Amino acid sequence: MKLGFIGLGVMGRPMALNLMKHGHEMGVYARRPESIAPLVSAGARGYRTPAELASDAEVIFTMVTTSNDVEQVVLGKDGLIHGAARGSVLVDMETISPTVARGVAQALAAKGIDMLDAPVSGGPMGAEQASLSIMVGGKQEVFERVKPLFECMGKTIVRMGDHGAGQITKACNQLALLVTAQGTAEALALAKSCGVDPARVREVLLGGIAASRVLELFGKRMVEHNFENGIDTRLYHKDLYIALDLAHESGLAAPAAALTMQHINALIGRGEGRSDLSALIKVVEEMSKAPITNHQSRVTEFP
Amino acid sequence: MKLGFIGLGVMGRPMALNLMKHGHEMGVYARRPESIAPLVSAGARGYRTPAELASDAEVIFTMVTTSNDVEQVVLGKDGLIHGAARGSVLVDMETISPTVARGVAQALAAKGIDMLDAPVSGGPMGAEQASLSIMVGGKQEVFERVKPLFECMGKTIVRMGDHGAGQITKACNQLALLVTAQGTAEALALAKSCGVDPARVREVLLGGIAASRVLELFGKRMVEHNFENGIDTRLYHKDLYIALDLAHESGLAAPAAALTMQHINALIGRGEGRSDLSALIKVVEEMSKAPITNHQSRVTEFP
Repeated sequence: MKLGFIGLGVMGRPMALNLMKHGHEMGVYARRPESIAPLVSAGARGYRTPAELASDAEVIFTMVTTSNDVEQVVLGKDGLIHGAARGSVLVDMETISPTVARGVAQALAAKGIDMLDAPVSGGPMGAEQASLSIMVGGKQEVFERVKPLFECMGKTIVRMGDHGAGQITKACNQLALLVTAQGTAEALALAKSCGVDPARVREVLLGGIAASRVLELFGKRMVEHNFENGIDTRLYHKDLYIALDLAHESGLAAPAAALTMQHINALIGRGEGRSDLSALIKVVEEMSKAPITNHQSRVTEFP
Repeated sequence: MKLGFIGLGVMGRPMALNLMKHGHEMGVYARRPESIAPLVSAGARGYRTPAELASDAEVIFTMVTTSNDVEQVVLGKDGLIHGAARGSVLVDMETISPTVARGVAQALAAKGIDMLDAPVSGGPMGAEQASLSIMVGGKQEVFERVKPLFECMGKTIVRMGDHGAGQITKACNQLALLVTAQGTAEALALAKSCGVDPARVREVLLGGIAASRVLELFGKRMVEHNFENGIDTRLYHKDLYIALDLAHESGLAAPAAALTMQHINALIGRGEGRSDLSALIKVVEEMSKAPITNHQSRVTEFP
């Protein structure tokens, strides 16, 4: 099938390569031209604008960053809406506002172009191993048509409902993930503050009901204070903002999510928006930097 | 080996039975005499007091409820300290304060009796399937001696350090578990409030980085609003109190744990201390009971 891929970062690049491995023809576009090089050397054709790419593709994938990026690359000057044929499909895969996803779907529908919102969970490793979870919103019939392509990139592939339902599901995913990360940071910091080795605590917790993928992946980096490699915390900030916005719009109280957002704000406020999310443990630890006497109330230090 | 088991509830009963399956002689005591019946019919011998039981056993397990229960059953009138021989071992397995665990270990040591604190994670299912995580504090040499017995009950068996270190680890476990449960409740409630099926959200989330045992076990009950079978929330309240107390004593800020505690308080305050922890989702949902218009700010309803 003739495909197009826009947005070739840490997620998009391996996803596009996995599609190519299954024999699909691939056109690529990236705002930073150097991003297309690895794809072009793997046999993809580079395009100068999203519109040009779209005019040559039956299904176009976007994996950019923000709601604004999607609006620009789809509806903006040289946006793919100006090149895509009737009956072609846009599959939009980064995490954005469900409201924006619905708006873009509506604009495309007016030109006879279909859309699926299809955000993913699984991180760069899931992208490389083609084991992503893909949460899809849009028409059933379009979903069926695109499903074989999703299967080149992911394992758990579920249509959640109409336009926006994929993004709502992803917002729930990020809320659960981020609150769990905050709890994991507090639990591992507690071990350390009580003089028990957090690395061993993590290991034994992974055998019980407190086990989570967050403890496995981010917990390891928390224990090692290794905050360099991973997904920028500022991207999780964007995602949790979307979740809190949805909670606000739908009248839901989400206090643990709101508290976690403040810790992410604190981390970004320290200038660490590009650190891995596991740096949340630094916020907890540094909030607690006053002299600590293990197992003895600090109140006793003040006569 | 001649063993004793005190506390034969939903956890203790299957644990004692698993020890008996490996051919150990078992003495049992329970404050409610009817609790010993299933063990006696499986071949255990019933005792009238902890002291009598202890006088016949090389290793005595306790799986009662609170710190007070442990103090009473070990140090109180007819407590096992009055019957246990020098060189025998108390293995204390429910979740209590590490400070109390250390105090009891000290009192026993004065009489030549060894102690391990060995709380578990894995719930009734883990107890039945002998797949518990067991977090042990105490002397290495005593741990080595008891380890084959732990292997009759659990899979992940780790010595975390000296007396109290097992209980500290369990407190970290409960903190991580309970904050994750709060986040899971908010995430599934968000799905519902936005009109997406929480059951399908749970399924797709289990395939990604937000996956956790909490989402798997408690998430299922949250989705089904099935709050009947499980461990009483009031027991988690006890455990989180211990974790927050440790945080306080060691000077650690644990804001998500404190927030989760308030939600557990709210649940118990509604008279639901015996509901399953998954009932946390009711607190979130009922906090948000005002009329909800999906995807539309409620502010717009007030001209």
